[in-house]
Amino acid sequence: MKKLLLVYIVLIGTLMAYLYMVFVKEDNSALLDEPEGLHGTLDEKYVMVNFLAGIDYWKNGLKGFEDAAEALGVSVEYRGSTQYDVQEEVMVLEQVIARSPAGIAVSAIDSEALNPAINKAVEAGIPVVMFDADAPRSKAYSYIGTNNYNAGVTAARKMAELTGGAGKVGVITLPNQLNHQERTRGFEETLEKEFPDLQLIGIADGKGDQMISEQKVRDLLGRFPDLSGIFVTEANGGVGAGNAILRLNKLDQVKIISFDTDKGTLDMVKSGTISATLAQGTWNMGYWSLMQLFHLRNRIVNPMSQDKGDSSIPPLPTNIDTGITVVTPDDVDQFYAK
Amino acid sequence: MKKLLLVYIVLIGTLMAYLYMVFVKEDNSALLDEPEGLHGTLDEKYVMVNFLAGIDYWKNGLKGFEDAAEALGVSVEYRGSTQYDVQEEVMVLEQVIARSPAGIAVSAIDSEALNPAINKAVEAGIPVVMFDADAPRSKAYSYIGTNNYNAGVTAARKMAELTGGAGKVGVITLPNQLNHQERTRGFEETLEKEFPDLQLIGIADGKGDQMISEQKVRDLLGRFPDLSGIFVTEANGGVGAGNAILRLNKLDQVKIISFDTDKGTLDMVKSGTISATLAQGTWNMGYWSLMQLFHLRNRIVNPMSQDKGDSSIPPLPTNIDTGITVVTPDDVDQFYAK
Repeated sequence: MKKLLLVYIVLIGTLMAYLYMVFVKEDNSALLDEPEGLHGTLDEKYVMVNFLAGIDYWKNGLKGFEDAAEALGVSVEYRGSTQYDVQEEVMVLEQVIARSPAGIAVSAIDSEALNPAINKAVEAGIPVVMFDADAPRSKAYSYIGTNNYNAGVTAARKMAELTGGAGKVGVITLPNQLNHQERTRGFEETLEKEFPDLQLIGIADGKGDQMISEQKVRDLLGRFPDLSGIFVTEANGGVGAGNAILRLNKLDQVKIISFDTDKGTLDMVKSGTISATLAQGTWNMGYWSLMQLFHLRNRIVNPMSQDKGDSSIPPLPTNIDTGITVVTPDDVDQFYAK
Repeated sequence: MKKLLLVYIVLIGTLMAYLYMVFVKEDNSALLDEPEGLHGTLDEKYVMVNFLAGIDYWKNGLKGFEDAAEALGVSVEYRGSTQYDVQEEVMVLEQVIARSPAGIAVSAIDSEALNPAINKAVEAGIPVVMFDADAPRSKAYSYIGTNNYNAGVTAARKMAELTGGAGKVGVITLPNQLNHQERTRGFEETLEKEFPDLQLIGIADGKGDQMISEQKVRDLLGRFPDLSGIFVTEANGGVGAGNAILRLNKLDQVKIISFDTDKGTLDMVKSGTISATLAQGTWNMGYWSLMQLFHLRNRIVNPMSQDKGDSSIPPLPTNIDTGITVVTPDDVDQFYAK
């Protein structure tokens, strides 16, 4: 009988310990977790919206967006227009907003056309940040991407290094797009200030097209046979310029600086046809877009910005420059997609 | 007897459930926690280093640094020179480096003098970021602070609004400091480009001193009695300019735009002596400095930058603009320290 009582006591003790664990300890562990670490829940869904969604250029940015989501324990989705079509991106963005996601990172095909949709989202309490291509007059909280003016400055300094700082140079660009205007302006103003012996003899519209850009370079070389260098502000034009100097047998005379790191560009850097290309920090654009959206969503922001709703005080940094890397034949290998 | 058996079964079942919880579920919850959330440990200590450590200006930045540390579950420490003394800040920084902290955020009293110490830390594997005042030629990974050129642009546009876009304006600044040169350049270039009827008639050195700045404003008003506005790029000079126009009874004629939000400046904004002052995003400087250091320390960075140690690929964003807020009599109250 005494033995049986002992068994009872042990078992009842166990029951009490069990009940204690279920009801008390769960609370306790929740208390311990809360102040440690930034994390959300999987039902917090953040959406990345862009245009020409299928092209390789976006892969690294999406990877950064996903990596940040994994680190924070939240979900992501990727949507974009399939065509280079302003109205299609507006429609995609409207559809995303209708489902009230936790936040949206947008790359704008046009610096004005998306503003009504962006503003509607912000006014409805959905955080929006811009990445890669800004909409500066929208209500989006920030821009995360390349400082394009500074990229032009870097291109000018590299051009001076490649050409010995003297001679005639040209630019092939997209004169109607803000990003490309800034790249051109940074290049031009740096030549004027720092390299007065490098003369900018022409700025041509390559229309983002390989064949048209090749023809524009041929035209420039027709008018200025002693041309020393060309800065091309986007990748298709860079390959077009490369083809032009290959076919005209001007490889040793004309130094080309291009933009971005698609396979065609990297191949021409590797062979020496393009002397250098400017790589953008696309992984960081994606990673820090998600990080900012998470902070806006969970109101981990400048306390002063929360005092009133329509305050002009920025809740978080307004402009994040993800930097530029000059890619030359020496280090081109590490830029190929893996 | 059957009843007793039932009691036994229930109690034994409870024992098994308890054992399951202790041995199996703990493991399980550890597995669930790990990939969720960014967090460090309290023995990860991050240090903020600045100069004139006692002044109010740093309080918000330190609060942001502490708030980020609390969110991530890491430790912080605050060190700085007590005087406005380059060698003292170098010495403080050397002492901090000697204790191998997890990372250091530095505000540089001089844009060159700290470079050897900063570079030594980075070469020893200690992450360093700059905040508020940059050392652009050092090996620090990034700068987090106000884009001073853009602050000057904002000041110019506000000045145009206050003066009706026409008249004579002057600048009181510190012509030898990079931040102040940038503010002045942004102001001057924006007047030239956007407001040709606003004429910049003089740039004077106020030496960061209230009395000297007051005298410089008196001199300007002596030479140009019809002066319409003054942009002062730092707070002491702003109060000096305010005293000058009060004593000369020019309050209605001369609009002053100043910088920062110390009590003396805010009081003059409240009374209307200073028409507007530019508030910096100091909380965000501290918060995002710690966030970047944490990412560098724990190698949550652009995967491409890790392929080789001396890579030129930025591991994280190189430049973070924390933005500017124009403070006017309407919203001055929320800027007083609480």
